[in-house]
Amino acid sequence: MSTPLILVCNDDGISAPGIAALVNSMKQIGQVVVVAPDSPQSGTGHAITMNHPLRMERVHLFDDIPAYQCSGTPVDCVKLAVDKVLHRRPDLLVSGINHGSNSSINVIYSGTISAAVEGAIEGINSIGFSLNDYGFEADFEASVYYSKIISQKVLENNLPEGTLLNVNIPKLKLNEIKGIKICRQAKAKWVEEFDERTDPHSRKYYWLTGNFINNDHGEDTDEWAIKNGFVSVVPTQFDLTAHHSISILNSWNFQ
Amino acid sequence: MSTPLILVCNDDGISAPGIAALVNSMKQIGQVVVVAPDSPQSGTGHAITMNHPLRMERVHLFDDIPAYQCSGTPVDCVKLAVDKVLHRRPDLLVSGINHGSNSSINVIYSGTISAAVEGAIEGINSIGFSLNDYGFEADFEASVYYSKIISQKVLENNLPEGTLLNVNIPKLKLNEIKGIKICRQAKAKWVEEFDERTDPHSRKYYWLTGNFINNDHGEDTDEWAIKNGFVSVVPTQFDLTAHHSISILNSWNFQ
Repeated sequence: MSTPLILVCNDDGISAPGIAALVNSMKQIGQVVVVAPDSPQSGTGHAITMNHPLRMERVHLFDDIPAYQCSGTPVDCVKLAVDKVLHRRPDLLVSGINHGSNSSINVIYSGTISAAVEGAIEGINSIGFSLNDYGFEADFEASVYYSKIISQKVLENNLPEGTLLNVNIPKLKLNEIKGIKICRQAKAKWVEEFDERTDPHSRKYYWLTGNFINNDHGEDTDEWAIKNGFVSVVPTQFDLTAHHSISILNSWNFQ
Repeated sequence: MSTPLILVCNDDGISAPGIAALVNSMKQIGQVVVVAPDSPQSGTGHAITMNHPLRMERVHLFDDIPAYQCSGTPVDCVKLAVDKVLHRRPDLLVSGINHGSNSSINVIYSGTISAAVEGAIEGINSIGFSLNDYGFEADFEASVYYSKIISQKVLENNLPEGTLLNVNIPKLKLNEIKGIKICRQAKAKWVEEFDERTDPHSRKYYWLTGNFINNDHGEDTDEWAIKNGFVSVVPTQFDLTAHHSISILNSWNFQ
């Protein structure tokens, strides 16, 4: 196999330490091109930019590796990269390494994973990586190691059609991690509590905050794996059809 | 059953004709409260607002129906509505009526459907409605009729846990529509073609454009139903796990 072409994206922005760690990992196994947002885009989900034009500029942040910052969302970055930078599908798309978990229901709010979802829609082998540590001073050693071996496996085997990987790495040293577990997304959710404040002009405003609640006691979930010292790998899909509900709805006799 | 409490949201903004049509439909079957974005939010997907505070103001757009406009995304609106406006889960959440299709892969980019996804995560019966007509002068008569009968069915039966409905209405007169079909999401996608331009300061910028490609010839898809004159109803879920890929990945022997 010739040297694979690897597109690197993220949602924390092109200057985040996590993407630098991912570039360092990927340049050991392929030819790397970076297209990432010019500012933090956490929580943008699968947003795309339709009402504004996009800007894209070459930057020199990763030695000799071609890198472009984009004014849009992570999904915009993937679309621009394929159409205007690479002019073809890369062999692999990796997104991250996210500063903070994207396990369980977080997958749906995450710009990092949405970039990988977009890659999978385009037919590209795609993986989102997240480290369970929000700090910009986080230790990415274990993440670099596991992102490399998981990416190599994906390049060797190719992912099933319509499937991407959502990988979460626990906040542990490399020698403390017990291995990799293939998991399902835990049934957990956020319970919102908006923090209501008053501005200097006497107008109310609200900050989104919340508590993460996991009532899923399965030992086959990503939450279980991470809590027990494993790297979690959840095969993830963009066919949102609840196939098991089709027969239930047919029994409702709509007309 | 006492009068159901119905939360109405959308992504085209609180002043769009589609949400007024949905309010008119819902006030025939329940007590309605509107919390919707103060500006168009198409294509925001499941984005949430974490880096900015949110504003919410009472507005008087729908006669005596309580209505609030919010500076955030459709998902923010749902979270704010539950925590700060209703102080409880409504019996039904409806989002739309979207100006334009949210069939097949569009489900993933849509703020309208993401509001309904958020409702389902919160354990609320949730439905997203879209009319296959982008015009602000669109005829919502058939949409009003079908949104009412589908909502009534959902209130009578309750949706299966973790399932919301993605409903698309064809651009037809009420008497031309053949009925309702329960469908799966078609395997279709957008092929991007960015429109590259140069601004008056000689800097490049890009507009996202694309062509919709449907290679799915199944007669059980939402695309087929709409093309053939039916209202499509796709049961939709937020468990993104590709369960069928778990055994494949386990066979890769990661270590």
